[in-house]
Amino acid sequence: MNFRIEKDTMGEVQVPADKYWGAQTERSRNNFKIGASASMPKEIIEGFAFLKKAAAYANCDLGVLPIEKRDAIATVCDEILAGKLENEFPLVIWQTGSGTQSNMNVNEVVANRAQVLKGLNIGEGEQFINANDDVNKSQSSNDTFPTGMHIAAYKVVVESTIPAVEKLRDTLNAKAIEFKTVVKIGRTHLMDATPLTLGQEISGYVAQLNYGLKAVKNTLAHLSEVALGGTAVGTGLNTPEGYDVKVAEYIAEFTGHPFVTAENKFEALAAHDAIVETHGALKQLAVSLNKIANDVRMLASGPRSGIGEILIPENEPGSSIMPGKVNPTQCEALTMVCAQVMGNDVAISVGGMQGHYELNVFKPLMAANFLQSARLLGDACLSFDEHCAQGIEPNYKRIKELVDNSLMLVTALNTKIGYYKSAEIAQTAHKNGTTLKEEAVRLGYVTPEDFDAWVKPEDMVGSLK
Amino acid sequence: MNFRIEKDTMGEVQVPADKYWGAQTERSRNNFKIGASASMPKEIIEGFAFLKKAAAYANCDLGVLPIEKRDAIATVCDEILAGKLENEFPLVIWQTGSGTQSNMNVNEVVANRAQVLKGLNIGEGEQFINANDDVNKSQSSNDTFPTGMHIAAYKVVVESTIPAVEKLRDTLNAKAIEFKTVVKIGRTHLMDATPLTLGQEISGYVAQLNYGLKAVKNTLAHLSEVALGGTAVGTGLNTPEGYDVKVAEYIAEFTGHPFVTAENKFEALAAHDAIVETHGALKQLAVSLNKIANDVRMLASGPRSGIGEILIPENEPGSSIMPGKVNPTQCEALTMVCAQVMGNDVAISVGGMQGHYELNVFKPLMAANFLQSARLLGDACLSFDEHCAQGIEPNYKRIKELVDNSLMLVTALNTKIGYYKSAEIAQTAHKNGTTLKEEAVRLGYVTPEDFDAWVKPEDMVGSLK
Amino acid sequence: MNFRIEKDTMGEVQVPADKYWGAQTERSRNNFKIGASASMPKEIIEGFAFLKKAAAYANCDLGVLPIEKRDAIATVCDEILAGKLENEFPLVIWQTGSGTQSNMNVNEVVANRAQVLKGLNIGEGEQFINANDDVNKSQSSNDTFPTGMHIAAYKVVVESTIPAVEKLRDTLNAKAIEFKTVVKIGRTHLMDATPLTLGQEISGYVAQLNYGLKAVKNTLAHLSEVALGGTAVGTGLNTPEGYDVKVAEYIAEFTGHPFVTAENKFEALAAHDAIVETHGALKQLAVSLNKIANDVRMLASGPRSGIGEILIPENEPGSSIMPGKVNPTQCEALTMVCAQVMGNDVAISVGGMQGHYELNVFKPLMAANFLQSARLLGDACLSFDEHCAQGIEPNYKRIKELVDNSLMLVTALNTKIGYYKSAEIAQTAHKNGTTLKEEAVRLGYVTPEDFDAWVKPEDMVGSLK
Amino acid sequence: MNFRIEKDTMGEVQVPADKYWGAQTERSRNNFKIGASASMPKEIIEGFAFLKKAAAYANCDLGVLPIEKRDAIATVCDEILAGKLENEFPLVIWQTGSGTQSNMNVNEVVANRAQVLKGLNIGEGEQFINANDDVNKSQSSNDTFPTGMHIAAYKVVVESTIPAVEKLRDTLNAKAIEFKTVVKIGRTHLMDATPLTLGQEISGYVAQLNYGLKAVKNTLAHLSEVALGGTAVGTGLNTPEGYDVKVAEYIAEFTGHPFVTAENKFEALAAHDAIVETHGALKQLAVSLNKIANDVRMLASGPRSGIGEILIPENEPGSSIMPGKVNPTQCEALTMVCAQVMGNDVAISVGGMQGHYELNVFKPLMAANFLQSARLLGDACLSFDEHCAQGIEPNYKRIKELVDNSLMLVTALNTKIGYYKSAEIAQTAHKNGTTLKEEAVRLGYVTPEDFDAWVKPEDMVGSLK
Repeated sequence: MNFRIEKDTMGEVQVPADKYWGAQTERSRNNFKIGASASMPKEIIEGFAFLKKAAAYANCDLGVLPIEKRDAIATVCDEILAGKLENEFPLVIWQTGSGTQSNMNVNEVVANRAQVLKGLNIGEGEQFINANDDVNKSQSSNDTFPTGMHIAAYKVVVESTIPAVEKLRDTLNAKAIEFKTVVKIGRTHLMDATPLTLGQEISGYVAQLNYGLKAVKNTLAHLSEVALGGTAVGTGLNTPEGYDVKVAEYIAEFTGHPFVTAENKFEALAAHDAIVETHGALKQLAVSLNKIANDVRMLASGPRSGIGEILIPENEPGSSIMPGKVNPTQCEALTMVCAQVMGNDVAISVGGMQGHYELNVFKPLMAANFLQSARLLGDACLSFDEHCAQGIEPNYKRIKELVDNSLMLVTALNTKIGYYKSAEIAQTAHKNGTTLKEEAVRLGYVTPEDFDAWVKPEDMVGSLK
Repeated sequence: MNFRIEKDTMGEVQVPADKYWGAQTERSRNNFKIGASASMPKEIIEGFAFLKKAAAYANCDLGVLPIEKRDAIATVCDEILAGKLENEFPLVIWQTGSGTQSNMNVNEVVANRAQVLKGLNIGEGEQFINANDDVNKSQSSNDTFPTGMHIAAYKVVVESTIPAVEKLRDTLNAKAIEFKTVVKIGRTHLMDATPLTLGQEISGYVAQLNYGLKAVKNTLAHLSEVALGGTAVGTGLNTPEGYDVKVAEYIAEFTGHPFVTAENKFEALAAHDAIVETHGALKQLAVSLNKIANDVRMLASGPRSGIGEILIPENEPGSSIMPGKVNPTQCEALTMVCAQVMGNDVAISVGGMQGHYELNVFKPLMAANFLQSARLLGDACLSFDEHCAQGIEPNYKRIKELVDNSLMLVTALNTKIGYYKSAEIAQTAHKNGTTLKEEAVRLGYVTPEDFDAWVKPEDMVGSLK
Repeated sequence: MNFRIEKDTMGEVQVPADKYWGAQTERSRNNFKIGASASMPKEIIEGFAFLKKAAAYANCDLGVLPIEKRDAIATVCDEILAGKLENEFPLVIWQTGSGTQSNMNVNEVVANRAQVLKGLNIGEGEQFINANDDVNKSQSSNDTFPTGMHIAAYKVVVESTIPAVEKLRDTLNAKAIEFKTVVKIGRTHLMDATPLTLGQEISGYVAQLNYGLKAVKNTLAHLSEVALGGTAVGTGLNTPEGYDVKVAEYIAEFTGHPFVTAENKFEALAAHDAIVETHGALKQLAVSLNKIANDVRMLASGPRSGIGEILIPENEPGSSIMPGKVNPTQCEALTMVCAQVMGNDVAISVGGMQGHYELNVFKPLMAANFLQSARLLGDACLSFDEHCAQGIEPNYKRIKELVDNSLMLVTALNTKIGYYKSAEIAQTAHKNGTTLKEEAVRLGYVTPEDFDAWVKPEDMVGSLK
Repeated sequence: MNFRIEKDTMGEVQVPADKYWGAQTERSRNNFKIGASASMPKEIIEGFAFLKKAAAYANCDLGVLPIEKRDAIATVCDEILAGKLENEFPLVIWQTGSGTQSNMNVNEVVANRAQVLKGLNIGEGEQFINANDDVNKSQSSNDTFPTGMHIAAYKVVVESTIPAVEKLRDTLNAKAIEFKTVVKIGRTHLMDATPLTLGQEISGYVAQLNYGLKAVKNTLAHLSEVALGGTAVGTGLNTPEGYDVKVAEYIAEFTGHPFVTAENKFEALAAHDAIVETHGALKQLAVSLNKIANDVRMLASGPRSGIGEILIPENEPGSSIMPGKVNPTQCEALTMVCAQVMGNDVAISVGGMQGHYELNVFKPLMAANFLQSARLLGDACLSFDEHCAQGIEPNYKRIKELVDNSLMLVTALNTKIGYYKSAEIAQTAHKNGTTLKEEAVRLGYVTPEDFDAWVKPEDMVGSLK
């Protein structure tokens, strides 16, 4: 491989000749061989591209960066956003906890690429754009990384997670309406209980997702605050007056999302509670989705020895040894994602709680776990929606069979003959393997006519709005 | 011990003669000898007292309960709330996951106590108030326990946790203002960084707590929804028309908090995402408080071999072997509480994700962990506030000494002579154990006059609003 | 209330006159009003009683404590162990993270009680036994608290948790043998699969518990190491030669368990990885028990709309509204305990990871969570064993019905006619609601005679050792 | 793109013409677009290659597979292990929870690649090797995936994690010996305490790692058990007599690790407690490493306003804005890894606890989290060792300065003049900013000569073995 020599304040470093990155990126590559290379999420790199461009514009507006430098920086940032430089960011999550090296990676790539776009070779002639003094102007890793993290997190939540959950919610809501009169047995403690309709059951899932969506949206205002303008420790040292507000406006403009400057920059560097907060809401969604997916697979279990009240799509052969087997595989993928999100929540909290003084140095960990959760939840909801939820159908025959047989219909008699006599009827029928009606009449508590009038599953499910 | 015979639908049970509880409570006592007795939180019992009274009023208004029964039930509920029956609730958290047995415990105690208040002995004469048919009228364990849980959770959060956090926040805010011009060294990566003021540093803590308070408050609307009216599976079977709305209004009236009926009763029984959601916000507070308390103890470390920039109250001898030692014990209590809350969050999420069909049967677990977290956070914030935060004082001598010595003041030169020359000055001073000024001048990059004009810590801390 | 004046190195304190504790205990009571009072687990206090007595004996043997002081200290320790002084330990978990104040609580109670046993009033005459100089001789909180923690943890695990899990394991093993020929349908992905016997299914639970027990036992050697002899920072300052080995021998003698002195005292104070390690194994047990209890409730679900392959004891009425309902309440209590243990594991790990320099100051948190887990797992296993597992019976009729109907018996044809034709048979029978035999013959793949010879559920379950 | 038609029991599927995979892989690709493609860890694919080859050998030995099929299968498995087919495994973690589709992916690739190696095109002529009937012979996804998971997990732990931790342990042990006489101040509660040597302090880290290594090794016997031979539900249906033992022997032979057949196959499919168990030990290592890395960065903090007792290597510029700043970046990477492992432990436990009946369907989740933890811990220990631990040096000047000043040396006086007078000396010196000796003499408690004789830091650190 060919190399060129790059320098930083510590001295010279050999860098692959065909790459735009510089000395500090190369040092990090060599010093942090932890896990697969280039594991720093690409959403973070994109977040950096947005903010470097915004900083260049703000710096220029405020008179500390010439317009041609602004445009050169902006051009490379746009290339990054267009995916043209994707092999230029080789660093890993497991680097310095401030993400300094990824900030420098972006600074170096922008500087060297700008040199090339100007028609020069890297290192040839005077450096047109300096990584630290120009690309990083009015910035520190300490305020850029959290800004990039918030941009990335906000975008994926708003553009992927929320729409996906809403899509699944809409599908389930349509099912809830479609099946609102399908009376079925209820189950509490996994045991037979009083009836409800399949639509009502599914409406509970819809409500869970609505609460989860609301919870996520409640956190977005905090997540929309960006640290940029705080520089090294939150004081804004080396930034021009008015820079923090302006740079946030540019970020909002370039991303199309309502980012604003953080109210307190000290908090914005030293703590990442916004990440903790929004991920807490994602975890709530995981808790909800686990319940929903687990219910669906239990309701669909069978085909002959399970519950079997609903049918779900048969998407692929289910077994390499059992011919003809079909499994609730979408439920399984989704519940695995939920377990991952629950684990990620702990990783994020453990990182979030360990900030020291003016800086939290678990930034890349927090960002990576957040982005994985948000992405997986979004993808898994779309997958579950398309390949499972949309295809849910009642197994009418099975549903009727079970509801007709149920002993818990006896509950309707409570208000007529009291809890104790009702219990006696149910227990006797259970013991004798008979029906409620037989025992109710035999025990002399209810006439056959009253029984038929009082015990109607369809009257036991409340109002069906 | 003397016993009397109580009956339920399964038969006879011997019950201690001097207790009001009945057969089902006694069965649970015998069947669940898990952990210390009476571990079911008293806040839950109080929640039940509120809801049983509210149900009696709603039932009476709607014509299904006579007024004298309503009043008898209400009288006993008021006794429970006044703490007069505290030895009557012997059950544990680790019972049936619906909390049915604690619901029956309350039903039985109310029924038997009402009999005694009427001037009869328990079991003597006709039973005036029936546990299932009267006290539990229009109710099921499945909607009462979550209602009691929400009442208890809401009350402790609003009455204890939030005021305590706000009190600590106010103290810290006063300190932030008081010390807003005390320039000190900043630290990032635990390493010396550019200066900020002590007030700025503390303002970051204030911001964290403000975000946490906002996050908690965002969840209260969900937590204020009560399941009552759903009965067994959410359909509202055996409840009179309009009952759910009315009973919530009575709960609101009796508790003084804005409780409303849950929009979807199926969700309210089968999932407890409101508990997951609010506890998620409590966990965020724990993450924040851990950072704050840890910073305080690091800043106060010493007295001679630590950081020592602040002084905190000396509350007690710190060591049984090292004479004269004083320790940051309030920080330790608070960070232990934070660790507990992080663990509780996992317990709650694991419980919350495992609902089945129409019922989640991890209710007592979720309630107990929630209440512990909310109570401990509140108490620990008050304790930390009173015995530590209020007494924080700057160690002016130490602060000045450190800031005067710092190499990171060199950052002020970036915009004058560039990042690279500035780095050279700092590195040389570090290597030689000299001052920045000496090396800046010796290297010929800055005149002494310029150095003094440019490198002023007090000019490096931004605007002090 | 009456008070007396006690003094410590910080000055005078008013203490309730009828209590043995002294100034430092009282300071802690006042300074740490966090959660319920006296929450420090009594097992920890007992651990202290063992170690204080052991220290007195070792100190005496080594010539630094007179024999009459040794005996006076030992006498009070024995009183503590006999439960005679249980109201003398009012402190909470949420105190200083070294547990110093509970160490001093024990020191003070022993010193003052010894004075009284000598026939004097507290504070009267010369102090016979000094809390710091005698009871705490050759000790520091920093080595006593971890020692007390290990004694408490080891004892509860070995005396309660392990025997309880073994009892449940034995019950399940007996069931596995009893039902080893009861052929039933298997289920994978919750869907019908090839058959196995009920005994085989239960044997999997037995294996899980055996692995869990082995995992716990693997950790005991580490847990049996005690820190005593390390004093303040691990160096053993102020201890006589040979003290650490000797004091551990006395602890072993007094407790009847094989405690030994920790190999490295610095580790023993600064980290509590032994607690992390053993609790990790308890968490594994929780993971296993959750699976087992969940299976049992699913297998027992019904009575008419569930799986219903096994019957479990009916211990109490299951519903306050649904008459005659019986629920798998022991499974619910046990799975709630499992969720708690999973949460506690995070609390312990978060505490364990945050030691600083020579001391971990999350000791009381770690101890309390550990002891709760160990106690609850033990109690819940006994409860589940007695009230559920022992009563598990097959529902033979239901089991036979399901196995006869199953489509997955087709798997037996794989080795005869290949996977593809077998799949076709199963899919056709599924679609047509027919039997495998009908379709196998109709498709011309198998003769009726061959089908009967090849597809025998009882031949599909492997060898039944 | 060119496609060919592949078939499975559900019908035809279009597959990229240049890939070896077949219908079921392609269905999975289309049905599970969750997260990045090809996320199933390559170690799992390698595990499959080992086990498929072993199964072919065992099947051949037992007379159910011809030798030429055995060799064809083995040849392709060897190609997989040599990394020649790495683009043939496009599936994701988030698929069916049994990993069936990855099992079929391997089956299909082996079958089609064998066809090509025979000189035919895919689909041309008779299929020489059948994916289900040959490659998967005597197997099910349900026993192959856990086997692949154990092979992968065992290998990475034994080949990467353990050696890396041992390397770091050895480095720290050498430092502990090298610095065993460097007396420094101890710190408890972050506050000055009695002295110890730097070697002693580091020896505590060594002890932590030794315990962690022992804990990991304790779990390996469980992890070495493989499920193969259990097939669909654990009964071993469709396997020849003696197959399970033989196939494990071949796996042992091919991998060079002591794999054995699982004692209970029902457990081996339905639960993955071995994964839970070993990961619990990895989590313990994470807890230990977090403590160690955090201590190192605190001890190295400065250069002028921190603790500064040790020097660590300066590997890269630490700040993009603060010139000359150097940070403890290796500590940060390592502690981020520790936080990840703690989160992964929860994900794994949540997956492990949710097995149902005969199968746990969180296998890919559990495998992926396990492998990430094991890999990251190994890599991070190597990185920390090479770039940080090996370069740790005492800052002798600073260490001496602090120890000479310390007030906690007073502890040496306890055994001479008692705890109370010692405390008075320390408190007075603290208040007056004087030395212990000055105050000891002034208070008249100790003569200057005795003070010098009694208070010697080097005599306070115990025996230096």
